[in-house]
Amino acid sequence: MIYVSYEEAVARMEKGLRKYLPEQEAHHFAEIFAGNSFDGVHSHGMNRYPRYLGDMASGLCDAKVTRAEKVSGLGGLEVWDAHFGVGPLIAEQAAMRAVELAKEHGIACVALRNNSHWLRAGRYGLMMADAGMAGICFTNTCMNLTAYGVKTPSVGNNPITFALPREKGSLVMDMAVSQYAYGKLEIMAQKGETLDSPVGYDTKGELSCDPGEICRSGLMLPMAKWKGSALSIMIDLMSSMLSLGRTALTIGKPSDGEAGMSQVYICMNPAAVIDMDAAQAQMEETIEFLNGLEPADGGSGVHAPGQNLERTREKHRREGIPVAEATWEKILAAGE
Amino acid sequence: MIYVSYEEAVARMEKGLRKYLPEQEAHHFAEIFAGNSFDGVHSHGMNRYPRYLGDMASGLCDAKVTRAEKVSGLGGLEVWDAHFGVGPLIAEQAAMRAVELAKEHGIACVALRNNSHWLRAGRYGLMMADAGMAGICFTNTCMNLTAYGVKTPSVGNNPITFALPREKGSLVMDMAVSQYAYGKLEIMAQKGETLDSPVGYDTKGELSCDPGEICRSGLMLPMAKWKGSALSIMIDLMSSMLSLGRTALTIGKPSDGEAGMSQVYICMNPAAVIDMDAAQAQMEETIEFLNGLEPADGGSGVHAPGQNLERTREKHRREGIPVAEATWEKILAAGE
Repeated sequence: MIYVSYEEAVARMEKGLRKYLPEQEAHHFAEIFAGNSFDGVHSHGMNRYPRYLGDMASGLCDAKVTRAEKVSGLGGLEVWDAHFGVGPLIAEQAAMRAVELAKEHGIACVALRNNSHWLRAGRYGLMMADAGMAGICFTNTCMNLTAYGVKTPSVGNNPITFALPREKGSLVMDMAVSQYAYGKLEIMAQKGETLDSPVGYDTKGELSCDPGEICRSGLMLPMAKWKGSALSIMIDLMSSMLSLGRTALTIGKPSDGEAGMSQVYICMNPAAVIDMDAAQAQMEETIEFLNGLEPADGGSGVHAPGQNLERTREKHRREGIPVAEATWEKILAAGE
Repeated sequence: MIYVSYEEAVARMEKGLRKYLPEQEAHHFAEIFAGNSFDGVHSHGMNRYPRYLGDMASGLCDAKVTRAEKVSGLGGLEVWDAHFGVGPLIAEQAAMRAVELAKEHGIACVALRNNSHWLRAGRYGLMMADAGMAGICFTNTCMNLTAYGVKTPSVGNNPITFALPREKGSLVMDMAVSQYAYGKLEIMAQKGETLDSPVGYDTKGELSCDPGEICRSGLMLPMAKWKGSALSIMIDLMSSMLSLGRTALTIGKPSDGEAGMSQVYICMNPAAVIDMDAAQAQMEETIEFLNGLEPADGGSGVHAPGQNLERTREKHRREGIPVAEATWEKILAAGE
C-alpha cells in the first residue's frame, strides 16, 4: 500500500482519461475516482480506474457521451437517457437535475436509463444532502448474486443510498444488498479468514463460510436471506420501470460486461416545508444518544451513517490516500 | 386455529370498534384488520385488534381523530399531522393524497407526523400500486431493537415497502429491518426451535440463537449486522426530518407505548412518463425468468415480492382466514 495526495491522484488519473475525454471532463472524472477513495470508499474509487479505462477503450462505455438526454417528464418526475455514456459524470448530472427540480416541486425524481457504472452510490446522495436535500438513490446492475432459493446468478448486488443534510456534515448510508462485496471476500480469502455464517455457495453447490470458494463459484447470496433478495428484485424492477431501462436480466451476467444500468435519483426539499433548525436539533439529539451508548464487546459503538466521513477525509488529507501498489502502477502507466 | 370468512371477521370487529368510532370509520377499520389477515399478513391484521382497542381505550391512540391535517407543502411535497389519531385510517388518507399529488406533479411525498401504528406497511404501497403508481413508504417506531455495536434498545424495527403496478396483480415488498419479528421468535420458541445464526442477545448479554432468550432480553439485532442497523437509523432520521415529527428516541421504549410515529409516503407516476405496456412486458420477462429457476434444496424457488398475494387471497376466500382461537374470543368479547 502506498499513500498519495488527492491532488497527485487527480493529476495522474487525468492524464490517462485525457485519451478518451475532453480536458474538463477528464479532470472531473479523475476527481470522482480520487474523491471516492478520499472519502474512504476504496472499493468504488481509484481501484476502479483501470477497469473503467478498459471499458472506455472497448466501447462498453461510450466516452463520447458525457451528458444525458431528457426523454420525458411531468412536474418533478423526469426520464433521461444516458446512451451508455460516462457513468459517474452523467450520474452527477442526474443528481443535480433532481436537486433543481426539487427546489421547484418540493420533491423530484430523475429516472435514468442506459447509464454505465456510477461507481459509488453514496456520492449522489451526498451531493443532494450537501445541497440541503434529502436523497434516495438506487441502481440495478448485472446478475452477480444468486437469489435466495436458487443457486443461479439471477439478481444484482444493487446499492441503495439514503442521505440527509446535516450542519456538521451530511449523513449518508450507501448499502448494496449483499453482506459483503466480492472484493471484501477476496481480501478475507487472502488473509485466510472464514465467515461466521454462510453468505453463498461453494463450487460444489453447498452453503459455505469459505470466502474464496464463494468468489470462485460466483454464487454469493444477498444479505438477510429472503429480505436482501426481495430488495434486490424490487430495486431492479422499480428502476427499470420508471426509466423504461434495462433489467438485471437484460444487463446480463458479469461476464457479459456491465452496461446500461437503470438508475433512480429521488430528491426531497425539507427546508421548503419544515423548520430545518428544529429538524437539525432533534437529529443531533438522536446522534448524541447513539454515540453515547456503551459499545458491545470492545467495539466502537454506534455512529450515524456517514458521521465519520469528515474524520476519514482529515486522515487522508494528513496521510495521503492509501492505494494498492499494483493499482497505482496501472494509474501511472495509463498516463504515459 | 379457527377459520372465519372475511365478511364475518369484518362484522364482528366492527361491533367492538363502534364503541370508539362512527359507523363508517368503524366498518372500514374492521376491513383493514380483516384485509391484512386476508392478504396473509397475520402479524399485522386481526391479531392486532385487541391491542388497538386497548390503545383507543387508554387514549394512546385518539379515536376522535380519523383524518390528518395539512401543515405545509410545496408542489408534490406535503407535511401532514395525524395528531395521534387512528393510524391505518390516516395512513390510507396519506397514501391516497400522495397518489392525487403524483397525478399532478409526477412524483409526490406526504410526510406524516404523529401517527399511531399503521399496522401493515405494505397496505399503503399496494394502494398506490393498485392506482397505477410506484410507491415507497416507510415509518419509524419505538426503540425495540439494539443497534449493531451495542446492547441497548436504541433503534426501531422500521418497515419499508416498495410497490409496483402490475397487470396480473401489484407487486409489494414489505420488510422490517430485523430478520424476524418478535412474534415469529415467540412462535419458534414455543416449538423448541433454534436459530441458524444469532439474531440478538440473551439475558446474560451473549449473542444467542435461542429465540425465547432473545424475546426475554428484548435485545434483538437488526438484520445483516451493520446494514440493517444503518437502514433503521436512516429511516428514523429521514421520516422525522421530513415530517418534523418524533424520532425513535422521542417515541421511546416499547414499554412507553408506541405513539406518534413519523411516516413517509412517496408515490411516482410512471404512466405519465413512460410506455407502461412496454414496462409491463419487460417486468414479466424478469418474473418469468425468476420463477423458472431450479429451486435450491427442495424449496419453492424465487418469486417476485407480492407475486403470490392473489393465491393467498383465493385460499382464504375458499377456506376462511385462520385466526388463533384466543384472538377470536377477544374479538367476540369486544363486540358484546
